[in-house]
Amino acid sequence: MASPDQMLDPSVAARLKRDADGLVAAIIQDDTNEAVLMLGWMDDEALRRTLTQGRVTFWSRSRGEYWRKGDTSGHVQHVRSVALDCDGDALLVRVVQVGAACHTGDRTCFDAGELPVVTDPGDR
Amino acid sequence: MASPDQMLDPSVAARLKRDADGLVAAIIQDDTNEAVLMLGWMDDEALRRTLTQGRVTFWSRSRGEYWRKGDTSGHVQHVRSVALDCDGDALLVRVVQVGAACHTGDRTCFDAGELPVVTDPGDR
Repeated sequence: MASPDQMLDPSVAARLKRDADGLVAAIIQDDTNEAVLMLGWMDDEALRRTLTQGRVTFWSRSRGEYWRKGDTSGHVQHVRSVALDCDGDALLVRVVQVGAACHTGDRTCFDAGELPVVTDPGDR
Repeated sequence: MASPDQMLDPSVAARLKRDADGLVAAIIQDDTNEAVLMLGWMDDEALRRTLTQGRVTFWSRSRGEYWRKGDTSGHVQHVRSVALDCDGDALLVRVVQVGAACHTGDRTCFDAGELPVVTDPGDR
């Protein structure tokens, strides 16, 4: 069993509304220029590490393992603040991003994904 | 069966990586001041409406119904752009927000949720 100092603060854990896999969504925003960089997933332990280590750790749903951003790529995310949303199922993590946030080399994971949109058709 | 003009563009639908409930996460960002306002969920039909109606529609997981933001509260979200992320499971929707984004009356759903964080403890 993890020692108390290796567990997520119970007062924080009590506020989380996890999905069926025990995860909450984590939005990563650049603290320098406000860009939304990516969306990742955290369980209690990934959030504990993120809150205490100064670096962002995710739970990788595809690989089934913890993933501290930048350990392989060097594209580290230094944590500046973390906020939980009103219903406890999403986090907003503000970071200083080193290099590209996206594994494709793009600055953000949304750079290549613009969808066609109708912006002002009136109220249908 | 829905007529073709009431279905999500198949080229967009093919890029979505939906969760077990058929949903993708939708990050809502204020196009005016870059604030991250909230996180919601969309299925194909909610995304179709969002892309074509100029207003943001979510799928409410708690109520099990479509929810066009502002229809009850007046706190409408006018769509400015929509981008899909590199792995197809998250959307970034930029909006012009009327009034408060959060049902609590806060400007964003993250305003009241700051968590204690260690920002610079070195590399543990």
